[in-house]
Amino acid sequence: MTEHSHLTVKNNTIVSVDAMGGDHGPSTIIAGLLLSTKQHSNIEFLVHGPEDKLAPLIEKHQLSKFCTIVHADSAVSMDDKPSQVMRHGKGTSMWSAITSVKQKEAGSCVSCGNTGALMAISMVRLRKLPGINRPAIAILWPSFGVNRFNVMLDVGADIRADENDLLQFALMGASYARNGFGVDRPRVGLLNVGTEEHKGRTELKLAYDLIMDTAETGNFEFVGFVEGSDIPTAKVDVIVTDGFTGNIALKTAEGTAGFIGRSLRQAFNYSLLSKLSAFFAYGPLRRLKRHTDPRAVNGGVFLGLNGTVVKSHGAADATGVAAAIGLAYRLGEAKFSTKLAARVASANGSIKEDRN
Amino acid sequence: MTEHSHLTVKNNTIVSVDAMGGDHGPSTIIAGLLLSTKQHSNIEFLVHGPEDKLAPLIEKHQLSKFCTIVHADSAVSMDDKPSQVMRHGKGTSMWSAITSVKQKEAGSCVSCGNTGALMAISMVRLRKLPGINRPAIAILWPSFGVNRFNVMLDVGADIRADENDLLQFALMGASYARNGFGVDRPRVGLLNVGTEEHKGRTELKLAYDLIMDTAETGNFEFVGFVEGSDIPTAKVDVIVTDGFTGNIALKTAEGTAGFIGRSLRQAFNYSLLSKLSAFFAYGPLRRLKRHTDPRAVNGGVFLGLNGTVVKSHGAADATGVAAAIGLAYRLGEAKFSTKLAARVASANGSIKEDRN
Repeated sequence: MTEHSHLTVKNNTIVSVDAMGGDHGPSTIIAGLLLSTKQHSNIEFLVHGPEDKLAPLIEKHQLSKFCTIVHADSAVSMDDKPSQVMRHGKGTSMWSAITSVKQKEAGSCVSCGNTGALMAISMVRLRKLPGINRPAIAILWPSFGVNRFNVMLDVGADIRADENDLLQFALMGASYARNGFGVDRPRVGLLNVGTEEHKGRTELKLAYDLIMDTAETGNFEFVGFVEGSDIPTAKVDVIVTDGFTGNIALKTAEGTAGFIGRSLRQAFNYSLLSKLSAFFAYGPLRRLKRHTDPRAVNGGVFLGLNGTVVKSHGAADATGVAAAIGLAYRLGEAKFSTKLAARVASANGSIKEDRN
Repeated sequence: MTEHSHLTVKNNTIVSVDAMGGDHGPSTIIAGLLLSTKQHSNIEFLVHGPEDKLAPLIEKHQLSKFCTIVHADSAVSMDDKPSQVMRHGKGTSMWSAITSVKQKEAGSCVSCGNTGALMAISMVRLRKLPGINRPAIAILWPSFGVNRFNVMLDVGADIRADENDLLQFALMGASYARNGFGVDRPRVGLLNVGTEEHKGRTELKLAYDLIMDTAETGNFEFVGFVEGSDIPTAKVDVIVTDGFTGNIALKTAEGTAGFIGRSLRQAFNYSLLSKLSAFFAYGPLRRLKRHTDPRAVNGGVFLGLNGTVVKSHGAADATGVAAAIGLAYRLGEAKFSTKLAARVASANGSIKEDRN
C-alpha cells in the first residue's frame, strides 16, 4: 500500500464538524463528539470554529487525541440568507467545514446550522455530480421496516422537480439505502395521491415510466406509486417526491407527532389517578419514545454533490448530534460519495445507450 | 308564513342519506341514523337504497317516524370509475341521494361511498356555484384550537389549483368555519414550505397577495403562510392548499398517527409488567383516543356546489356515520349553501369592482 492510498483510507474516517451551528452552541456539539468516540473507536474530527472557544471544551471532554481544531473567526447565523452566505461566507466555520471535504481532508461533513446556507455553500464548494440536475436532501423516516426507518427525498433542497429529477432522486435514494444501511435491493416508491397508474400530475406519470425502466440498471425494485400513509410502512424503503411535497409531508408528520405527544401528556395529567397511572406506564412510554425518537434518526444527507454533507437538526442535543456524526462517519467510511457518482454515471450511460 | 316557506324551512332539517355506500353496508349506516336522532330530535331522513333491504333495518331500530325510503335498485361500488358513474349512475342510491338535494327535498346529503364518484355526480347534478372554478373537499383536522379541530381544504377534489382557486378556497373555507362552527372571523393560513413571504411556488406568492386583499371583504383574517407543523395548532382556523398537497398531508398525518398508535400498543404489550401498566393507563389512553379520535371529526364537505354534500369515511362505524350526519344536519339547518353562494358572489363582485 502506498503512502498516498494509506492517507486516503485514513481520511475516510475523519469527520469535518461545523462546531458553531445549532441552537445550543458548541458545548452541545462537542458533547456529541464525545458520544461518537464511544461508538466508533477509530473516528477523528476536524473541528471548525474559534480556537479560543473550542480548545477548552475539547480539553474538558478529554477529546484532544480525536480532534484537530481548524480555526474560523465567524459563524453563519440562522437568519443569514443563503445568497449572502454564498458570496460572503468565506471566514465562517460552515464554509471551512465543507472546504475540508472538498480538499479530501475528511470523508464527510456535519453541521447543525442554517439548512439553506449549508446547501448553498455545499453547491458552490463541492459542485453537483456530473449528470445531476438538482441535488436533494434525504432524511430517515421512522418506520416499521427492518431498519426501523425509511429513506425519503427530497424534503426541501428545491421546491421543484421534473420527471428526470425524480428519476435521479430514485437512483440516489436507492444508492444511499444500499451504502448507508445495507439494504441490498431497495424498494423505491413514488409519492402520489393514489396508487393507480393513471393518477396524479403529468410529471409523476412520466417519472413512473422512467423509474420503472431504470430499476434493473439501478439495482432497485420499483413498487410504483405510494401514498402518504405508506411512508412509515414496511412496504417501501425509499420514498421519492419533489422538495415541496416532501417538506410539507415531513413537517405535517412532525406536527401530528407533536399533537399526539402533547395530547398523551394532557391525558396522563388529567387527574390524580391518571398521574398515578403515568407512573406505572413509565416503562412502555419510554419504550414508545425510543421507537419514535427523532434523535435516533437525526441527519439529513445532501445527495448529488461531490462529497458527503450531513445536516443535523438545529435543536439536536448531544445524542442527536452523535447520531448525525455516526451517519456521516458510516457514509465517509463506505466511500459513499464515490459509489454514488459511479451509480449515477452508469445509469445515465445506460439510459443514453437505450435511447441510441 | 306561507305553506311554501314552511316547507322550505322543514326541508332544511331533512338529511338525504345514501344507505348503500361504505365498507360495512346499510346496517351500520342505519345504526348511525339512530344515534343522530338522539342528538337532533327534529332531524328527518330520506334514505336511498333497495326498499326490501332498508325497510327491515329501519323497522328494527324503530326509526320509521324519522325515515322516508327512496327506492334505488343499484349502488356505486368502490371500484367504479367516476367517469362511468357520471354517465350510467342514474339508478344508484348515490345519484338518488344527491338528486334529493338538487330538488330541495333535503337540506344536505351524506354518503360513505366512492369519493371520486360522489364528486362526479355532485358536479353533474348540483353544478358549480357561479364564480367557482374548482370545487374543493374540506375536512376537519384534530387540533389544539378552541373547536378542537381546524378546517383544511382542498384535500383531493382536484390535484391542481392556481392562485384564483386558492383565493376561492380561502373564501369558502372561512365561510364554512363561520357557518358550520361559529368561528366569527376565521384565521386563514396558506400552506407553504416556510413562513417567509419570498418562499414557495409562484402561484403561492400570487395567492398570498390575492387572499391578503380579500380578507376584509371576506370577513376573515389572513395569517399568511403556514407550515405543515402548524396544521394542528391554535394559530390558524382554516388551512388552504391545493388538492395534491392537501391529500399528501392528510394521508401522511393518518400514517403517522397509525405508526404512533401501533408503537404505543407494542410498547404496552412488551412484557407482563407493561401489560399490567396498560390496565392502569386505561383511563388516560381512552382520553387520548377521544381527543384524537378521527370518528369524532368524520366528514369531508364538498364546497363550491349548489347544495351541501358530506362525504363520510368509507370505514366509518355508526359513531362516525352519526358525526357526518350531524355535520350535514347543522349545515343544512344553517342554510350554509345559500350563504356560501352569497359570500362568493359578494367577494367576486368586490374583486371586480376593485379591478375596475
